Amino acid sequence: MKAQIVTIGDEILIGKIVDTNSSWIGNQLTTLGVQVDKVISISDNNIAIKTALKEGLASVDLIILTGGLGPTKDDITKKSIAEFLKCEFYFEEVLYNMIVSYFKMRGIPITDAHKEQCYMPEGVHLLENKMGTAPGMLFEVEGKYILSMPGVPYEMKWIFENSFKNELAKINPDNQIIYHRTIRTIGIGETSIAEKIKDITSKYPDDISVSFLPSLGHVKLRLTKKSSENPKAEIDREIETLAERLGDYVFGFDGMTIEECLLNEFTQRNLTLAVAESCTGGYLSHRLTAIPNSSKYFLGGYVTYAYEVKESSLDVKNDTLIKFGAVSEETVKEMHIGILNRINADVGISISGIAGPGGGTEDKPVGTIWMAWGNKTKQYTEKIQLGKSRLINIEYTVMTAMNKLRLFIIENYPT
Amino acid sequence: MKAQIVTIGDEILIGKIVDTNSSWIGNQLTTLGVQVDKVISISDNNIAIKTALKEGLASVDLIILTGGLGPTKDDITKKSIAEFLKCEFYFEEVLYNMIVSYFKMRGIPITDAHKEQCYMPEGVHLLENKMGTAPGMLFEVEGKYILSMPGVPYEMKWIFENSFKNELAKINPDNQIIYHRTIRTIGIGETSIAEKIKDITSKYPDDISVSFLPSLGHVKLRLTKKSSENPKAEIDREIETLAERLGDYVFGFDGMTIEECLLNEFTQRNLTLAVAESCTGGYLSHRLTAIPNSSKYFLGGYVTYAYEVKESSLDVKNDTLIKFGAVSEETVKEMHIGILNRINADVGISISGIAGPGGGTEDKPVGTIWMAWGNKTKQYTEKIQLGKSRLINIEYTVMTAMNKLRLFIIENYPT
Repeated sequence: MKAQIVTIGDEILIGKIVDTNSSWIGNQLTTLGVQVDKVISISDNNIAIKTALKEGLASVDLIILTGGLGPTKDDITKKSIAEFLKCEFYFEEVLYNMIVSYFKMRGIPITDAHKEQCYMPEGVHLLENKMGTAPGMLFEVEGKYILSMPGVPYEMKWIFENSFKNELAKINPDNQIIYHRTIRTIGIGETSIAEKIKDITSKYPDDISVSFLPSLGHVKLRLTKKSSENPKAEIDREIETLAERLGDYVFGFDGMTIEECLLNEFTQRNLTLAVAESCTGGYLSHRLTAIPNSSKYFLGGYVTYAYEVKESSLDVKNDTLIKFGAVSEETVKEMHIGILNRINADVGISISGIAGPGGGTEDKPVGTIWMAWGNKTKQYTEKIQLGKSRLINIEYTVMTAMNKLRLFIIENYPT
Repeated sequence: MKAQIVTIGDEILIGKIVDTNSSWIGNQLTTLGVQVDKVISISDNNIAIKTALKEGLASVDLIILTGGLGPTKDDITKKSIAEFLKCEFYFEEVLYNMIVSYFKMRGIPITDAHKEQCYMPEGVHLLENKMGTAPGMLFEVEGKYILSMPGVPYEMKWIFENSFKNELAKINPDNQIIYHRTIRTIGIGETSIAEKIKDITSKYPDDISVSFLPSLGHVKLRLTKKSSENPKAEIDREIETLAERLGDYVFGFDGMTIEECLLNEFTQRNLTLAVAESCTGGYLSHRLTAIPNSSKYFLGGYVTYAYEVKESSLDVKNDTLIKFGAVSEETVKEMHIGILNRINADVGISISGIAGPGGGTEDKPVGTIWMAWGNKTKQYTEKIQLGKSRLINIEYTVMTAMNKLRLFIIENYPT
């Protein structure tokens, strides 16, 4: 079964809101074995809606519309569907009585707009909506289906989960199962991953698809298979093979983040962490502490932005700063020792760099970042050379720092 | 001019990611006077892309595609466009040399996939991309336009703003002018703002629209007017009237952020700042330092997550922690004095709370946050009571903290 999702309303087109409904519905349908072919956002406009219905029914089995079922005048989805299907309206007494008693309870007067809401296109199958006054509407058109739901996310979700899913099971009884798994990597680019695994993936049958989803500093690798038999065993096995090939580049699977990975790695070894940041300005601490339970290993961190604070708070020598500068191997080494001494942690990391866009020199252009990490007996340092964009430099540096910490404790504290 | 936005990639259809690119582009185009007719998400699939191009060119003047320009095999946008336009590929030497030198600098080997990226459809107008290796591609088709950009948001945005906007001005010269101005407020809700200004806004002519754009902890108030004559003078005048009415709730206009506001307020008074964070875990420092030139006033900050670190790094008394707890007025007062002493700054702020989702007690439920701020002679404290969501608590607390700092220096250091 193929589906198309249509969201209705100008707010999405002019960029005032982000369409999260489609993503949610897409995910639900995929899990239920329905293939989503296309997602469309169109204007609150009769012709646009009818065109979408016509084009949709020509290519898919199910069109899901959201938006345009409320009581205000710009909501014209219902009228457009009725016009498209060439059907009359009838007055839905049951719904009207429900709305009347609902509003009475809340002491809100009933208006004409509410009554208007109760006229329904003939042939509709109404789907209960316990979260609002507009029910979902399901239509059958020559073996294909149109579902219309309000655009308010919690109403839409309630109808989908509680009223529509059962209907879907009836109209689409023998669905295929779609299964996917994701490998999460860090410290390696999309192209290099593809290169490393191409002898494996090139042998995949046509029904296993491989996707690369790169973000700043990390890449997700996803396998998908759609099958009438349960594809779990096969995909799980292939995921294992790929993960083995990619080795230490893999920090987790599926929904796991690098922050969660660090939390696990540190706590299972009973290790604690302290960080000293300059150019990343607290972003590393923030990322690490943005997840629950981070206090189990993260003791604290200093953001030493000014020269004097590097000296007073981390005991970086004035000589070192003058001779080598704040962005140097020597300075990050002293920062690293300083933070381990000040905050009595097992493992630490320090970062100093030129985040930009200003502040670069010929020797040390914008994007020059030094970091030092390790414990009290073993210290590593590295320079990375990034670009001119401040926020990207901060983000990428912090991703790199988290990976250095991960690799350090995996190597030095075997479990 | 009418436009259609097409995002390419299965991740959106199966609901793995939310399409934020379309919203961003829709907003940009609307501001530039281009009407967005439709937003579509389709699969990484040759036929789907060609169909979208064909249908799009039949109804709009500009199609903007994002996604599918990376170096791996699932990226087929470029090939689909070339097939649709029936054009051959040529090897773009300049781009190749750029990529080679870019990767050389970073010590990454060039692969065939990178070389493949440099084959371009004949007739393309390449748009510079300083954030990645895939340039934007602009095609003219009988007076209509196709723009293709990578799907990575920061690359897409860079190309749009730095390379495409100029092109758009050339191909769409006689648009009506849409002028909007925004007042940025903090510390007051949407409904209260509406109430305060309704005697002014109720008198506006129909062609001035008023929007409220609430985010966590702050609200933007926007006036818009679209006109063939320049509406600037009128809107500027109204913005001034509204801002005067809203007084100290207004921290800036248009693109100005609260971070930039603080940078201005601190530097024009020659004041310095230090911060002590517990539950916000470095996010306040990060927000303040995420903008260029923040080093002009931000000296540094401590993230004191563990009890012992509050004692050793900020001289909070062990007695205080035991008697009142880490989340208490007494503790944040000592943290505030501690950070001012350790980092010799004019103004400081300290925050300690229970970000959640765990860690609450009956006395101090999740979402209890204490903060103390001021200078060495004047100290204020406040408790705020938030909800159960960790990230929302962190975000809202930091917004509140920034506003406390703003109001403190405006009141205590008149210019």
